[in-house]
Amino acid sequence: MSDTSLIFTDCVASSLAGIIEKEKPKGIFIIADSNTSPLIARPLMDNCQALDSARLITVDAGDENKNIDALASIWSRLSAEGATRHSMVVNIGGGMVTDMGGFAAATFKRGVRCVNIPTTLLGAVDAALGGKTAVNFAGLKNEIGVFANPLAVIVNARFFATLPAAELLSGYAELLKHALLEGADALAEALDFDLSNPDYDRLQQLLERSIKVKQRIVAEDPHEHGIRKALNLGHTAAHAFESLAMEKDSPVPHGHAVAWGLVVDLVLSRMLKGLDTQILHAVASYVDTHYPSPSALCSDYDRLLQLMRHDKKNITADSINFTLLQAAGSPVIDCEVAPADITAAIDICRDLLHA
Amino acid sequence: MSDTSLIFTDCVASSLAGIIEKEKPKGIFIIADSNTSPLIARPLMDNCQALDSARLITVDAGDENKNIDALASIWSRLSAEGATRHSMVVNIGGGMVTDMGGFAAATFKRGVRCVNIPTTLLGAVDAALGGKTAVNFAGLKNEIGVFANPLAVIVNARFFATLPAAELLSGYAELLKHALLEGADALAEALDFDLSNPDYDRLQQLLERSIKVKQRIVAEDPHEHGIRKALNLGHTAAHAFESLAMEKDSPVPHGHAVAWGLVVDLVLSRMLKGLDTQILHAVASYVDTHYPSPSALCSDYDRLLQLMRHDKKNITADSINFTLLQAAGSPVIDCEVAPADITAAIDICRDLLHA
Repeated sequence: MSDTSLIFTDCVASSLAGIIEKEKPKGIFIIADSNTSPLIARPLMDNCQALDSARLITVDAGDENKNIDALASIWSRLSAEGATRHSMVVNIGGGMVTDMGGFAAATFKRGVRCVNIPTTLLGAVDAALGGKTAVNFAGLKNEIGVFANPLAVIVNARFFATLPAAELLSGYAELLKHALLEGADALAEALDFDLSNPDYDRLQQLLERSIKVKQRIVAEDPHEHGIRKALNLGHTAAHAFESLAMEKDSPVPHGHAVAWGLVVDLVLSRMLKGLDTQILHAVASYVDTHYPSPSALCSDYDRLLQLMRHDKKNITADSINFTLLQAAGSPVIDCEVAPADITAAIDICRDLLHA
Repeated sequence: MSDTSLIFTDCVASSLAGIIEKEKPKGIFIIADSNTSPLIARPLMDNCQALDSARLITVDAGDENKNIDALASIWSRLSAEGATRHSMVVNIGGGMVTDMGGFAAATFKRGVRCVNIPTTLLGAVDAALGGKTAVNFAGLKNEIGVFANPLAVIVNARFFATLPAAELLSGYAELLKHALLEGADALAEALDFDLSNPDYDRLQQLLERSIKVKQRIVAEDPHEHGIRKALNLGHTAAHAFESLAMEKDSPVPHGHAVAWGLVVDLVLSRMLKGLDTQILHAVASYVDTHYPSPSALCSDYDRLLQLMRHDKKNITADSINFTLLQAAGSPVIDCEVAPADITAAIDICRDLLHA
């Protein structure tokens, strides 16, 4: 798996033009969703001569459309418009677009180069970098996918200033996760940020620091055999919260589920790994202040456990695996946790977040 | 991409048991088609204690079923039966099964280990080794796939003694291709083999030599940026012959199309690269003796050119690329050939093969 260039810029058009000049792709295919297509992709195409002959493929927005049917529609367009393995795909959108567009590119004619331009904070911090591509399948998140690194990720923090507050919250949960993995200083800095009244210059600095935490961990272990599992902090519970919400036809943003999942994992870390209680309470209080409360009910616990057993990170279908923390910056991967401890932790999490 | 163990054996059950003992997969999923499932997979499961808890997933036989729907049905079964990324997939069948089962394994939860047990000569010589997985899409062969090496390929030449003659012909075309890429000695040996009255001990020796040609070339260039394209000898024309036959609802075996494609490429090699005419005529005569004649008509030439333009190996949709030979053992990759030369070569090929 080759390296990804990470580009921070005020001008996406010129950064992208530079990549195109260097790579000389035979055909450029831009994948965007019904939100980013008119707002970001079209204006970018109008302002970038290197995109003059690019084709735009628009998919319906929303994680519920990150599915096999939408994937097949991308493949069909690529095929019908004569894409070759020497073409280039440019994904413009949040994680839904970079996950699905990345998977389409990785599998079309066994692999076409792609560039990710995240348009959400969550996408920038999480999905755009690291090579995890996927679609949802059979009601399960990211069940089908491959590891395939993008050629480059182009990050323009200005995009995020125009996002609704909910989107910002969603991305910030992953930023908190990276801070927990980096150490006490990074965590204090992240918890000091006022999400209700964001300072975007400060956010950009936090963002660069945060993305580099992920880049460092992924470079050590691209295929997630070891330390990359640390990035799963909060995610075993988060995926279950998300899948449950999908089943109830009231999907929740990934980042909200991650914020709740982080609190579940910190409770477990306190219970099982001796994590300092102040860290748990500082994070729980921050999440409680800025995020909605978890939507899961006591009657959902059995289903949440079932969903966790399906998580890709689990060694067997009978065990449930978590990444936990001994301290900020000291993750412990592959922690098997008993179902009773998990339901206790969800219960405490719901209390802390006033659910 | 990690290496593949290549195992020649008289006892597939014990070889597979050895792999399972070493790898300790959490769950084994055998993928077979409606032919190999009762004839080979079931008896193997009955005779191999290591497969006691394995699940059998059977797909409809035939290349026309190597499609997204069948792929989704495999993913569904894996998902429903609790496969994890620590499970193992065992593909038992010809290229259709190893291509599609390999792709299913490579993409389920972003990648599950797999072992290929080819049950046809074609599968053993070609599809089972080399990491190319795929399904057909939008009427195009292998349009969607990834490179993902199997953990091991287990080859038992005894399987092929029970194959119908047509299957033997099909695999033998790829064996001829490897001989052309290896050199004059290997070619002479391959052309000396009596396909109408096969000696299976001799075939096993030829087979080992042949598979190792492919293994050597793939190891040099797993993702087909350079020398691996040599393995495309005969295949630009062959894929077009196959796609045309699919469009006409009278599919031809891959290996027959490859035999015709080899003759087309040798005609072009004679025309454009000075290949010795004796090699062209020796191969054409062997193909004419043992294989059916090409089914394409003069009126199909334009469509064949269109189909070649869609070939994954092409740099742009406007050019058509071939691997040609200067001599046996001396391939030249990335040869752009003019449409008029291609139709002339197809015409000469049809004459040589008495179509």
